[in-house]
Amino acid sequence: MVPRRQRLAEALERAGAQAFLAHSRPNQLYLLDHPDPSTVISRGSCPAILFSAERTVVFPGIWTSNACRDMLPNCEVIPCELGDPSPTEQLDTYLKKAGLKKILSDELKPQIPGTEIAVDDVGALLRRTKDERDLAFMREAARISDLGMSTAFKTVRPGLTTLEVTAEGTAAMLRAGAEYAVMNPAVGIGTYYLDSGEDPRRVIKEGDMLFIDMACYVHGYLGDMTRAAIVGEGNALQRELLATVHLAYRNASQAMVPGADGRRIYQGVVDTYAAKGWAKYFVHHLSHGLGLGSDQPGINRESADVLQVGDALSCEPGVYVPGIGGARVENMIYVSAAGPEELTKCPIVPPLGF
Amino acid sequence: MVPRRQRLAEALERAGAQAFLAHSRPNQLYLLDHPDPSTVISRGSCPAILFSAERTVVFPGIWTSNACRDMLPNCEVIPCELGDPSPTEQLDTYLKKAGLKKILSDELKPQIPGTEIAVDDVGALLRRTKDERDLAFMREAARISDLGMSTAFKTVRPGLTTLEVTAEGTAAMLRAGAEYAVMNPAVGIGTYYLDSGEDPRRVIKEGDMLFIDMACYVHGYLGDMTRAAIVGEGNALQRELLATVHLAYRNASQAMVPGADGRRIYQGVVDTYAAKGWAKYFVHHLSHGLGLGSDQPGINRESADVLQVGDALSCEPGVYVPGIGGARVENMIYVSAAGPEELTKCPIVPPLGF
Repeated sequence: MVPRRQRLAEALERAGAQAFLAHSRPNQLYLLDHPDPSTVISRGSCPAILFSAERTVVFPGIWTSNACRDMLPNCEVIPCELGDPSPTEQLDTYLKKAGLKKILSDELKPQIPGTEIAVDDVGALLRRTKDERDLAFMREAARISDLGMSTAFKTVRPGLTTLEVTAEGTAAMLRAGAEYAVMNPAVGIGTYYLDSGEDPRRVIKEGDMLFIDMACYVHGYLGDMTRAAIVGEGNALQRELLATVHLAYRNASQAMVPGADGRRIYQGVVDTYAAKGWAKYFVHHLSHGLGLGSDQPGINRESADVLQVGDALSCEPGVYVPGIGGARVENMIYVSAAGPEELTKCPIVPPLGF
Repeated sequence: MVPRRQRLAEALERAGAQAFLAHSRPNQLYLLDHPDPSTVISRGSCPAILFSAERTVVFPGIWTSNACRDMLPNCEVIPCELGDPSPTEQLDTYLKKAGLKKILSDELKPQIPGTEIAVDDVGALLRRTKDERDLAFMREAARISDLGMSTAFKTVRPGLTTLEVTAEGTAAMLRAGAEYAVMNPAVGIGTYYLDSGEDPRRVIKEGDMLFIDMACYVHGYLGDMTRAAIVGEGNALQRELLATVHLAYRNASQAMVPGADGRRIYQGVVDTYAAKGWAKYFVHHLSHGLGLGSDQPGINRESADVLQVGDALSCEPGVYVPGIGGARVENMIYVSAAGPEELTKCPIVPPLGF
């Protein structure tokens, strides 16, 4: 694939613009010339970076100013110490002097005389189609997610709280190199809590429905998956619920091929649940984009994109039925020319610990 | 101390109001009649709760609707399922029927004919002065923070990354019962990174300055502390830096007595650092309130409160000196009638693991 900065240069040329002003951390990480920018812009404390074909000018906040100075030798870093003008003021001063004709920006900015600033998140567009570095880091994020989830499920046994289970899964992800990791559990019978961030102190009982969602960041990339299970044998309705969620997942994920219309994939999930009378309990999105954050494409009730080669997105049908329980499966999917590839490798029902 | 709902009733009476409309999760958790509301409103997915002297009416989002129904038997819960009007619409309908003369609200709301809605965060005012339950949960949050920090420091040895160290500290906090825990490390020599969320993959070396900040939530209450150390003997300047931060901390924390003016406490820290020529490197706040979130009082460069009996706040002088490194100490302080009490018990320099 063509290098990122060259793709940016081409996009700028097409738009008749000389530079791209990136305020969002995902856009900054994507375009910075550094082997792992997530170690430099370690959180959202860099208000702006100006990317042009020739140069990169970084306007860090006081919290990251020294990190940028030390770790970005190929960039022009505008220092920020106590008493200095704010990065935003320094950016204004810089742009007034620079005399650029047109800039694209991922966020509206005050007017600079003589410079046209167009709100056009070209960064998000470029990021949609994954390149080799994206895929390498996303595979690592998926691997660490798998490890966390299988560790948590291996810990499950009646008598423990969900918090005791997710503590082990989270610890495994941090030890494996996630810079951030959380797990959100839900457990119960007869309930249909939708919020997987529910009561972490609830004690797991034989016969419960259990599901665990998680999120981690690995080199800035999101790892995200969900697994559901019955604690023990369960009853016929619970097994039917789980099997139906698995069916909805299989159909939806296999439909994630280049050119597929997200609306039809969404409708397929609705139809699967409608056949059981459960359509009204499928209440959330099916897919969000994956990568560095705020990624395209998405598939939800209100809107859906048409899939392209190079897309990466979640596939997460879930249904939460009163009197039975809630269940969701979520995997990370990469849309290759050959069809959908599951980046998530963990079994659809990971082995429980008893 | 007078019970929370009675204090609210008195505040409402003084304001000539019949109810308090709480949108913020901290206000909701504070006023709900439940032994541990953090297990019910497990995240910010309940748009509004209306508290009056006689009743509590909960308007949950779809994610927490069932949890509220099952776990809040003493409240009127307005259910929210797919296709129902939004909680905000249901609230409007409810208020139009209720015919209340005056309501206090922690956030501006659309006009209800015949009802005066005054923006007045009486919840935040009530929460400022800690009661026994606050203190019990805050002590637990401080205890778990201590455990996490001492575990992380015990793990430190040259050759590990900061991520490997904080993974152990975070795991200890989750195992001990924190529903959420993160640790942000900074390490290096000659740098003065302020961002304790800096490069987690940096390898710790003998002679580095190290500091670790953390945050956890325990029953909804924030645990928050920071520790700094030299990895090994270090040099005279590093030892002077650390000793100066300790001096600034001791002076500031001992000054946190009822009636103390936060501006004078802040200035004391500035003076301590100014004596070394480092005043310009003390760039952040000294204190934020502690409790369920967005708590009073605060002490920073721009504004500071006068302290009162029952306040709880952080004390966190830090200084980040070019060529030496960065150091910060942060403890949780409770302002009792007898003076400041450190809820944080961990040694000011926890033992390192080598």
